Amino acid sequence: MDFVQAVTDETGPDFVPVPERIAVFDNDGTLWSEKPVYFQLFFAMDRVKELAADNPEWKTTQPFQAVLENDMEALAASGERGILELVMATHAGGTTDEFAAVVSDWIVKARHPRFDRPYNELVFQPMLELLDYLRANGFKTFIVSGGGIEFMRPWSEEVYGIPPEQVIGSRIKKVFEMRDDGPVLVRLAELDFIDDKGTKPVGIHNMIGRRPILAFGNSDGDLQMLQWTAAGRRRSLMGLVHHTDAGREWAYDRDSHVGRLDKALAEAETSGWIVVDMKNDWDVIYPPESTR
Amino acid sequence: MDFVQAVTDETGPDFVPVPERIAVFDNDGTLWSEKPVYFQLFFAMDRVKELAADNPEWKTTQPFQAVLENDMEALAASGERGILELVMATHAGGTTDEFAAVVSDWIVKARHPRFDRPYNELVFQPMLELLDYLRANGFKTFIVSGGGIEFMRPWSEEVYGIPPEQVIGSRIKKVFEMRDDGPVLVRLAELDFIDDKGTKPVGIHNMIGRRPILAFGNSDGDLQMLQWTAAGRRRSLMGLVHHTDAGREWAYDRDSHVGRLDKALAEAETSGWIVVDMKNDWDVIYPPESTR
Repeated sequence: MDFVQAVTDETGPDFVPVPERIAVFDNDGTLWSEKPVYFQLFFAMDRVKELAADNPEWKTTQPFQAVLENDMEALAASGERGILELVMATHAGGTTDEFAAVVSDWIVKARHPRFDRPYNELVFQPMLELLDYLRANGFKTFIVSGGGIEFMRPWSEEVYGIPPEQVIGSRIKKVFEMRDDGPVLVRLAELDFIDDKGTKPVGIHNMIGRRPILAFGNSDGDLQMLQWTAAGRRRSLMGLVHHTDAGREWAYDRDSHVGRLDKALAEAETSGWIVVDMKNDWDVIYPPESTR
Repeated sequence: MDFVQAVTDETGPDFVPVPERIAVFDNDGTLWSEKPVYFQLFFAMDRVKELAADNPEWKTTQPFQAVLENDMEALAASGERGILELVMATHAGGTTDEFAAVVSDWIVKARHPRFDRPYNELVFQPMLELLDYLRANGFKTFIVSGGGIEFMRPWSEEVYGIPPEQVIGSRIKKVFEMRDDGPVLVRLAELDFIDDKGTKPVGIHNMIGRRPILAFGNSDGDLQMLQWTAAGRRRSLMGLVHHTDAGREWAYDRDSHVGRLDKALAEAETSGWIVVDMKNDWDVIYPPESTR
C-alpha cells in the first residue's frame, strides 16, 4: 500500500502516470495453486481419456498409456518430453474456436482431486483482492504465465477480471485456413512461444511494449520477469508467493519439481523484494465455495 | 455511424458489450501514407547512412550501396530479400531500449521527401476522427500492421491515441541478457513474426484473443483480417481505404507494388464492405502542419 500510495501521488517524486501502471502476475502458483501438478496437465489428461476411443494405439503407447491407467509414476518418468507430447496430442489439431469451447466446458466440470472443487475456484483470495486494489488505483493487470494462453483466456476475465488481451502465455502455432463455411485458425502441433524464465520479459515486451512497475511470481521461472521489472527507471515493486502452508495448500520451495523457488528466493532476500509467507500472512487461501 | 449506433444500443438486437468492441486497423496506407515506399524503409535507409562509417564494406555491397548512392532503381532490383537485409542490418543488434530511442529520435527529425513534413504528420485526419469516435463509443482500437511493432510503438500513443499494448506488428527475435549494469533484451537478426495476410488473424488471435467487430485496411495484405472479422457471430463492419487521390496523396490499387489492392477490392464489392474513395469522400487528407 505504501508503494501504491507513492506511485499514485501526483505531487510526489515517485508518481507514475496511469498508462504506465503496468502490473504483471505469473499464474500457476501465484494466482492459483499448481499442485500436485500444473492444472493444465490435468486438463490434458482428461482430454487423453476423452479422445482415447479415437486413438486406440494410446493404450500401449507412453505417455498416453500412463494417463489411461492413472499411473502417475510412469507419467512422471516420461519427463518433460512426455508431457509435451501429451499437450500436443490433446491441444493441437482443431480450430481455435473449438479449443476455447473444450476449455470452457472442462473448467466448469472438472474438479481438483484434493479439494473436490473446480480448478478455477482454487485461486488465491488475497491475490484477487490485490488485483482489484491495483485496478482501483489505475493499474492495468496482466497475466504472464508459462501456461497455455488459450487454456487461460476462456475464464481469466470472469475469475481474475483480466481480459484475454491482457493474458500472455505459452502458445502453439496457428494457421489461417479458408474453409467452405468460412475462415478458421487451425492449431498446429508445433510450439510457437514458451513463456518462461528469460522469455517472460520477451513476452512482456512483445505483448505489452512497456516495462511493468509491479511483478509477482512464485518460482525461479519468474526471476527474470522480476529482474526486468526491478531494472525499470520507475519505482517498482516485486513480490513472491512462498508456499509455506501444507495444511491449507502446499508447502514447497527449493526442492520442488513443480514451482521450484530457489534462486528467486535468494534474490528476494538480497534485493528486498516482498516474500509472502502464505501460512502466516494469509487469513484465507481460497474464496468461499461457489454454489454452482 | 449506423453500425456504431446499432452495436451500442443496449435494447437492440445487435448490441455488443463494451469489452467485445474490438476495432483493428492496418497502419501503412490505412492510417498513414505508404508512398513512394513504406516509411519504415526510409527509416532503414537513414539508418544505413548513419551506420555507414562503421560498416565500410557497405560502399560496395548491395543493397547498402544502392542506399548510400540514393539509387532507388538498384534498391528496387534487390527485391524483398534486399529490403529484408536492410531491415536486419539496421534494426537488429542493439537492445530494445536503444532501438526505441533511435526511432523516437528519427520520427521527430526525418521529413517526407514529397511533403517536407514529419512522417507521423502524414496520417489521415478522417481516420484519426474515426479512431476518436470509436473510442468515445467504448471501442478498444488496435493497430494490426505488417510494419515493425517496435517501429510504431514509440509514437503510436501520441499520434493515434493507441497505446503500445494495442499495437500488433511484425517483429524480430529478442533474447534476455543479464549484463553488469542490469538486464536487457537484445534484438537478433532473425524474424520472429511477419504480420501480413493470413498471419494478421493469427496475430489478432495471439495478441488480443477476441474476434474484432470492426476492421479497416487498404490492401490485399488486409483481406484475411477483414474476412476473419466478417465471420464473427456479432454484427461487424469492414472497410477499405481506396487511394484515389493523386493530387493530394496518391492514386493506386491493382497494379501497385506497395499496397496492392485487387482481391480485397473485389471482395468488398461482393460482400458490401465500405470502400472509402479518398478523392471524393475526404475533405481533408492530413491534419494541419504542426508548428514544432
